[in-house]
Amino acid sequence: MPKVTIAQTILAVNEQVAQEIRQALMAYGIRALNIMSSPGAGKTTLLERTIERLRGRLAIGVIEGDVETSADAERIEAAGAQTVQINTRGNCHLEAHMIRDALGYVDLATTDLLVIENVGNLVCPAAWDLGEDRRVVVVSTTEGDDKPAKYPNMFAIAQIMVVNKLDLLPYVDYDVQKVRRHALAINPHLRIFEVSCRTGEGLEAWCDWLETFARGA
Amino acid sequence: MPKVTIAQTILAVNEQVAQEIRQALMAYGIRALNIMSSPGAGKTTLLERTIERLRGRLAIGVIEGDVETSADAERIEAAGAQTVQINTRGNCHLEAHMIRDALGYVDLATTDLLVIENVGNLVCPAAWDLGEDRRVVVVSTTEGDDKPAKYPNMFAIAQIMVVNKLDLLPYVDYDVQKVRRHALAINPHLRIFEVSCRTGEGLEAWCDWLETFARGA
Repeated sequence: MPKVTIAQTILAVNEQVAQEIRQALMAYGIRALNIMSSPGAGKTTLLERTIERLRGRLAIGVIEGDVETSADAERIEAAGAQTVQINTRGNCHLEAHMIRDALGYVDLATTDLLVIENVGNLVCPAAWDLGEDRRVVVVSTTEGDDKPAKYPNMFAIAQIMVVNKLDLLPYVDYDVQKVRRHALAINPHLRIFEVSCRTGEGLEAWCDWLETFARGA
Repeated sequence: MPKVTIAQTILAVNEQVAQEIRQALMAYGIRALNIMSSPGAGKTTLLERTIERLRGRLAIGVIEGDVETSADAERIEAAGAQTVQINTRGNCHLEAHMIRDALGYVDLATTDLLVIENVGNLVCPAAWDLGEDRRVVVVSTTEGDDKPAKYPNMFAIAQIMVVNKLDLLPYVDYDVQKVRRHALAINPHLRIFEVSCRTGEGLEAWCDWLETFARGA
């Protein structure tokens, strides 16, 4: 099957910028997450709830990636985190040079954890290193339990999977165990959290892990 | 904001192949839809329900686009339509040459309507003409009512929007009127259907329109 090939040179340049970012963040003792999902899986809501719960425990800086609008950045700012919005204007994923530019607007000296919310897309963002320490894929119980099988690369490159919208399980056909099984078959080292941002279920375990991770443990 | 540019020549070649496809389909009197959405919005389920309802009324051929797996094609085939699976192996959208290849496996002489189910992605597929007559974007009530605002290009290039999962409205924060308003602000000519594939609500209107459309009206 022929493909549109992204020139290797572009990815090599991206990798180099991602390394610069990693070194800059390390110099400030900041750890970074790259959060990815389908549109509407609940990345922004998960971040809102996380920031609220970790207020006073962890200084979180957020870089919001969206094709258009600054609505998500406004929500995150209202939740109490330092936020920078990137609008990709049609581009389907974030790239390292966008993060490098955005970091100029983050007060690194007072930040413990940097969270990058990628463009909603289960395919393209997986190919682009943003200088993060960990990649998180969020899935939700309303989008079908076939996502790991159908978009395996995203689950192969992630270290953490969050299953969101547990509260809607009674109303949908979704087998959480099947999702876990398929995801772990692709990536046996995947750490899995099951949460509901609406009821709060599972958020404490996620936030505890995040705090430990941000403290460098 | 810098972007990865898909060379104009690649899009020009795609356009040329799309024109060939359009002419081939026209010669057989076949009309074609390109259905796009986020992963998990319910494209495949909508197709299953549509094929079941239109059995005996319309001969539907389906080209299934997925990054991996043939699970969707198997579902569609079980619903009773002639089906061809394309696996893009990492590519985030279908391109016209893939459709041209797939058409070799479709019995055009006995087909009334060709439905192309694109890869689940609200960004990239919008840029690629597949030789279709109409583009359909499916959104669902569980993915947030901000999708037209956040992914405007998909709504600008579509002629039809289907709002799916109406049955879950009582359990989510989703304002259908806001979605309609935002989508129509981007594209005032958008034809909108509201459905639940689970309860069947709205499917008759959608199928009636589809039949009329396929008959060339």
